[in-house]
Amino acid sequence: MMFEKAAVLGVGLIGASLALAMKGKSLVGHVVGHGRSEANLKLARERGIIDSYELDAARACRGADLVVYATPVGAFKQMARSIKGSLKEGAIAIDVGSVKGSLVRDIEGLSPEGAHFVACHPIAGSESSGIDAASGKLFEGRLCIICRTERTDHGAFDRVSGLWRAVGSRIEVMDPFTHDKVFGLVSHLPHVIAYALMNTVADVDPGSLGYAGNGFKDTTRIAASSPAIWRDICALNRGNLLKYLDAFKTNIDDLLTLLRDGDLDGLEAAFERARGLRRGVED
Amino acid sequence: MMFEKAAVLGVGLIGASLALAMKGKSLVGHVVGHGRSEANLKLARERGIIDSYELDAARACRGADLVVYATPVGAFKQMARSIKGSLKEGAIAIDVGSVKGSLVRDIEGLSPEGAHFVACHPIAGSESSGIDAASGKLFEGRLCIICRTERTDHGAFDRVSGLWRAVGSRIEVMDPFTHDKVFGLVSHLPHVIAYALMNTVADVDPGSLGYAGNGFKDTTRIAASSPAIWRDICALNRGNLLKYLDAFKTNIDDLLTLLRDGDLDGLEAAFERARGLRRGVED
Repeated sequence: MMFEKAAVLGVGLIGASLALAMKGKSLVGHVVGHGRSEANLKLARERGIIDSYELDAARACRGADLVVYATPVGAFKQMARSIKGSLKEGAIAIDVGSVKGSLVRDIEGLSPEGAHFVACHPIAGSESSGIDAASGKLFEGRLCIICRTERTDHGAFDRVSGLWRAVGSRIEVMDPFTHDKVFGLVSHLPHVIAYALMNTVADVDPGSLGYAGNGFKDTTRIAASSPAIWRDICALNRGNLLKYLDAFKTNIDDLLTLLRDGDLDGLEAAFERARGLRRGVED
Repeated sequence: MMFEKAAVLGVGLIGASLALAMKGKSLVGHVVGHGRSEANLKLARERGIIDSYELDAARACRGADLVVYATPVGAFKQMARSIKGSLKEGAIAIDVGSVKGSLVRDIEGLSPEGAHFVACHPIAGSESSGIDAASGKLFEGRLCIICRTERTDHGAFDRVSGLWRAVGSRIEVMDPFTHDKVFGLVSHLPHVIAYALMNTVADVDPGSLGYAGNGFKDTTRIAASSPAIWRDICALNRGNLLKYLDAFKTNIDDLLTLLRDGDLDGLEAAFERARGLRRGVED
């Protein structure tokens, strides 16, 4: 057993899946869940995802040697303030959020003496959310980014790396700001685009959706993602996202110009450039 | 047997799949392929996709009671002129292209007396192209749009409907201009967006692609589609596409403004609108 008691703050897709994975591999003795919805916590307990629950975050963390921030990222700082007084000596807190950057420093700053924070981002999310989609196998074969900083405790880093490996993930270490540049581009930007595409269909003719083929479905699948989670991610990675959206608009305008001018060779070359890059991505 | 001899003009994903489907269900006696690449035609013959081939389109159509336009849509008009003199009395020509609109009237106008044209669009394409991806089951359970016009011959329409049903498709009849509005929105627009997203990644940091998760892969899958095919589709549905791209840019700008202003409630509401619509689409 790696941990005696884990407190999972936010029992949604990722929190519940991590709880299931840890329990399934006997990595933890007891999992206490915390969240705003008692109905959800009760259901999670009935399904064996958590062993008990607390509506008060500080109470959930009391005695825990592992704390998992698994709420939307916008709630992390307030959560860190709430639990600060109840973390025990040597407790390790991790998060599973999609934004790092200065948030890591903020949470580190809110960690009490003797407790450790290690920022994590398992690349295992999907358009699904909530415990219905949770699975103990969610992290198997997936990448987990760990953002090590100059404040990261070596022992805590090793234990957290071991945890992710034990649930089947590969580890990669990344600086928090590099993380946000990379995932802003390959994750946050596509989400905003997918949402905008669905809203365009809503504006123009939602009745056309009955004719959507696999291409449309693939392209817009992540527009079914949780608005609360993605609102927070976008807000916290705003700087990168605004820059990328501008670069994207430039590319849309380039294609618009080629199309308007009837420059079919130019259009084909632009599509070919995109295709060449996409073909290099393993599906 | 529904047809004695079918000429498939363009032996790519759709043409080859239709040939395989027709042969598999004994709907046709002999399939002759035509295309620009003799190497591809030879390979198709070796694999039993076609029975023979002709490098000259008119020669391929001689004696055929079914002709299938399966090249990129931009080549249809020239092809219609080339084969006009060799279509036999009662021959039925169909196409499998993704754009209809005025092109249907153009091809109808180029059809000789006694031959019939029925415009078809099987919704069965993918990012794959070429005969390696061909399958006789490609049309099973899929929708096929038939664009009936005031010039469509009733007998030919019935035989073509029967052909698509025999290869497993559901039929829906649509006006050619309505077709282009609908598929401009749910197919052509997403392709342009996916290409633009890949080119944005190319501009900003292609190295980030190593971290792409399933969301990115889904969103950009169709950017691997054939540039020649999509160049033609975009050019021939330009009017609708320019309008939709403008509507899309407005939606991107709306999200940009909410993000820049830090209006998180507005951002969440915009995401929620998109999610509500996407959740109604069956995956």
